[in-house]
Amino acid sequence: MHKLIDSLFMRELGNPILREKKDSAIIKIGNKTLAFTTDSYIVNPIFFPGGDIGSLAVYGTVNDLSVCGAKPLFISLGIIIEEGLDKTVLERIVRSVKLAAKEAGVKIVTGDTKVVEKGACDKIFINTSGIGEVYYPGLSVDRISPGDSVILSGTMGGHAISVLSEREGISFSSKVKSDSAPLNGLIAGVLKASDKIKFMRDPTRGGAATTLNEMAANGKFGISIDESRLPVTEGVRAACELLGFDPLYLACEGRVIIVAGKGDENKILRAMKKDPFGKRACIIGRITRNYRGKVYLNTASGGKRIVGMLTGEQLPRIC
Amino acid sequence: MHKLIDSLFMRELGNPILREKKDSAIIKIGNKTLAFTTDSYIVNPIFFPGGDIGSLAVYGTVNDLSVCGAKPLFISLGIIIEEGLDKTVLERIVRSVKLAAKEAGVKIVTGDTKVVEKGACDKIFINTSGIGEVYYPGLSVDRISPGDSVILSGTMGGHAISVLSEREGISFSSKVKSDSAPLNGLIAGVLKASDKIKFMRDPTRGGAATTLNEMAANGKFGISIDESRLPVTEGVRAACELLGFDPLYLACEGRVIIVAGKGDENKILRAMKKDPFGKRACIIGRITRNYRGKVYLNTASGGKRIVGMLTGEQLPRIC
Repeated sequence: MHKLIDSLFMRELGNPILREKKDSAIIKIGNKTLAFTTDSYIVNPIFFPGGDIGSLAVYGTVNDLSVCGAKPLFISLGIIIEEGLDKTVLERIVRSVKLAAKEAGVKIVTGDTKVVEKGACDKIFINTSGIGEVYYPGLSVDRISPGDSVILSGTMGGHAISVLSEREGISFSSKVKSDSAPLNGLIAGVLKASDKIKFMRDPTRGGAATTLNEMAANGKFGISIDESRLPVTEGVRAACELLGFDPLYLACEGRVIIVAGKGDENKILRAMKKDPFGKRACIIGRITRNYRGKVYLNTASGGKRIVGMLTGEQLPRIC
Repeated sequence: MHKLIDSLFMRELGNPILREKKDSAIIKIGNKTLAFTTDSYIVNPIFFPGGDIGSLAVYGTVNDLSVCGAKPLFISLGIIIEEGLDKTVLERIVRSVKLAAKEAGVKIVTGDTKVVEKGACDKIFINTSGIGEVYYPGLSVDRISPGDSVILSGTMGGHAISVLSEREGISFSSKVKSDSAPLNGLIAGVLKASDKIKFMRDPTRGGAATTLNEMAANGKFGISIDESRLPVTEGVRAACELLGFDPLYLACEGRVIIVAGKGDENKILRAMKKDPFGKRACIIGRITRNYRGKVYLNTASGGKRIVGMLTGEQLPRIC
């Protein structure tokens, strides 16, 4: 259904800015270059280990602006509430929005609330849109070239497993917390440390595998990643083994994949590790001349396999 | 419930920009003054005489930017879809969004779609956020003073009655169509015609009575309106009599109330009437020294009565 919808929107509404399919639209107003983005959050359950729908909605939009080289400034908040939602639940979410905005250094400047009758929505949905000012222009898939390094800021899949385990009432020996976090500080540090950053994206829906495949889709290069380097916590690994998931396809909400030209890897990793959300940053692979348009994994056992796009539906209502 | 929510949001998230409670936030980025707004649309039914949820979502955000003296430029589109929604329904809505954006001269530059399981939302909800560039700064309730004229761009209540009659399956002898329309052209004409415009607002939720009461709330002036001048179509009048509604409290989605200093009324009315959505523009009243903080109606029979805020709940899911 997602594909159907995406193609419908692109066909009907496609314009040069929308067609770029970045996390944010890059728009010009006079001499200012701004980033503008929107996301709706429908996560179920609304509270999960490590976060809730309120902080998730703020961080998600902050991150979508940040990966476009923009400083997030202003956020809007559009909330749809099911009539009868417990007032203390709503208060908890609004406080979480407030704290998240404070942590990320953004202002909630405009909002809208709609109440629908019981049964017309599931508890609460939140839309956040955001405006940022671009300070590191030119980030683009088109600048990626063979030899570049692929860096991931931390462990994979914590967000998806946290939401799923809370929803399904599954518990693991080690509690899995969502990685949901604001990345503007980490990204600002990286962009200050290196002028060789070519592209960034946060691996949300469909996880790192999907993000890497989207990057490679223009067919100009391949992406080689090393299984032994992929950072995964013990808890997520155990959950994946139990449930039959591959962490490469699991949504993160506080991670970024960065592609950088050769030579600055250590500077970039040092900048990432200075940030609380980049402690487990590492190089996970590189851009290659081979396998153009494809992502392939060098397995821990010494083999190679193509990492395709996710087949079938993604986990529902993870964000 | 609306009041509870509003006070919660204001208390927790209140900052100087949010506290202004304008239709759009007025934000500064460098030397640019921008307007930024968000609205979620949950109208039921999604198609109604004179419009649908798609065009409504575009026009609503265009109008919220326009009444702040901004030229609407960029719109985001966040859509939540109930799984199983008929593909032709979705196509019809997306085409309506496209046509509405074209008519209003705005670009849909960024979007997001989420699909939730059957029963988790009612067919489709749309959030639009928008960015505009302020070209007529300083519009503010604080500039309104006794002697100013209150002008309404057209007939009242068509939108609410159209949605309600479609939802409830009521038909009237004369079909009532929604007034839903983009007002940026009309407003640009008015702002070009007069430099005496002090304040504008579109009378959506709660209708003209609510908008006028919000304007008067600072207690510095009263608002006198003349019942005999209030523009209402025959169809809306008949529906109101049948259903026991007062058109003053019914939501419009293509009307604007303008407060202007004395002397330019004719210029303003001429500018409005040039626009297809301003044919029935008229002066409905004036700002007074009496009845500070109140809105009062000079009735057709020669009496006076206070027009209070809406008591009880508004009509649900009108926009």
